[in-house]
Amino acid sequence: MRFISFERDGKAVLGIRDGEQVRVIGDETLESLLARGVDLREYATHHASEEKVPVKDLKFLPPLQRPPKIICVGLNFADHTSESNYAQPDYPTLFFRVNTSLIAHEQPMVRPAVSDSEGLDFEGEIAVVLGKGGRHISKESALSHVAGYSVFNDGSVREYQFKTPQWTVGKNFDGTGAFGPDLVTADELPPGVKGLRLETRLNGELVQSASTDEMVFDVPSLISIISEAITLEAGDVIVSGTPSGIGWARTPKLLMKAGDVCEVSVEKIGTLKNVIVDEVKA
Amino acid sequence: MRFISFERDGKAVLGIRDGEQVRVIGDETLESLLARGVDLREYATHHASEEKVPVKDLKFLPPLQRPPKIICVGLNFADHTSESNYAQPDYPTLFFRVNTSLIAHEQPMVRPAVSDSEGLDFEGEIAVVLGKGGRHISKESALSHVAGYSVFNDGSVREYQFKTPQWTVGKNFDGTGAFGPDLVTADELPPGVKGLRLETRLNGELVQSASTDEMVFDVPSLISIISEAITLEAGDVIVSGTPSGIGWARTPKLLMKAGDVCEVSVEKIGTLKNVIVDEVKA
Repeated sequence: MRFISFERDGKAVLGIRDGEQVRVIGDETLESLLARGVDLREYATHHASEEKVPVKDLKFLPPLQRPPKIICVGLNFADHTSESNYAQPDYPTLFFRVNTSLIAHEQPMVRPAVSDSEGLDFEGEIAVVLGKGGRHISKESALSHVAGYSVFNDGSVREYQFKTPQWTVGKNFDGTGAFGPDLVTADELPPGVKGLRLETRLNGELVQSASTDEMVFDVPSLISIISEAITLEAGDVIVSGTPSGIGWARTPKLLMKAGDVCEVSVEKIGTLKNVIVDEVKA
Repeated sequence: MRFISFERDGKAVLGIRDGEQVRVIGDETLESLLARGVDLREYATHHASEEKVPVKDLKFLPPLQRPPKIICVGLNFADHTSESNYAQPDYPTLFFRVNTSLIAHEQPMVRPAVSDSEGLDFEGEIAVVLGKGGRHISKESALSHVAGYSVFNDGSVREYQFKTPQWTVGKNFDGTGAFGPDLVTADELPPGVKGLRLETRLNGELVQSASTDEMVFDVPSLISIISEAITLEAGDVIVSGTPSGIGWARTPKLLMKAGDVCEVSVEKIGTLKNVIVDEVKA
């Protein structure tokens, strides 16, 4: 199943995709359902109404608006580590995003006013949404903790990312973390999303392309290793890393400006599309 | 006023300190009250009951158990930046903690099983709790966004902190972020907690001592600069940085082991005390 969160009359509504339509389920959010330990497919089967809304008319929301944690993985494709001038670490490079940075499919991605004209870069990634938490999760059982997968664009304000030894602020500007459109339940995809093509396009031009098989730490490894340190919770999102091709590493740099269209596509999951706008300060 | 969160019959209870006693207010959490925009002092005045519990009998909870964000500031005392072998950045060095890492006053701080025998280090800090959120907050108005202050021990699993270019995992092991005991409302303290002495003791020995005046970025600057990038929310916690003296930078290293007692004291705010235990894996 493919879950979609959208806004109607100022409220969040959950639905499931049915071709070009979305069948309305109700107003409980995915993060609330997952926190309650609900099986999403069973819930949708029992609660989906007959009411349908055309997908093209939707105002999308991120699949989860307030996940308990958003754990991002850097340097998880060797050719991206290399283009970024880092040695490949033998442990996942983790940083967090906060919920205030999230935007939805078709919502504008914001180049901040404080950034210079070359500030905002794309990073196409796969988001792993956990259905069950835990600590010290074995690699063998890790995939049983996954509810589903989605697409993420880890929009990065590069000069802020490198102002200090920690990338955090450059990864957390408001309006830079694009997430969606669909949460695709794990049963519809290859285990651990192995063998899927991940592509990013800027104004239609292919700028990133890789197979998920190239990940240094695959999905079961990430879940297992992160849970050695941190209790994972249902609804947590792991943003699993970007391949090479980022604009910052190119000569000349290829960064995003107002009016640009950035699309991240993951085979069998979907395409996340955002137009870049300049921040308008109040 | 001094707010204390504690546990009774498995539930969180909020109270205010009254000498050696705590007057019970009720079961709404500080994060919930702050999210609703409630003035804490006014609320306590109207809702504090006559029921009192001796402070010595309390099972403390962190003042806030699930703040929207915990924003930590690294390298915010020049002598600590120097002992850590970094050049002093001209922008705050930010990283996040997640709620799963939090522990309370008098709760054990956990040295993880995966860490080697020299893994866990102390970092005494001041926590700033926001009562009002915002974006692009001016430095001049920043202190009006503060609800109060508390004490924090940013327990750091050093070899994990330095496994990759990002410190995040070393700062987020379960049971390493000690927070409390009291949330002291801002009206009881000097504006921006200027001129207060911050001290850390390990087994009674003074290991860190500095004045808050030595912060590279003071409290109003932190709020203003962070809010240039990130929307701050009521209940967000800014952990404002540690002075020199950390165990990792000493020769020989002075790290914490099971049975050690670590205390962080901030003048006029209070003392946060934790005993170190080794993780017992289930």
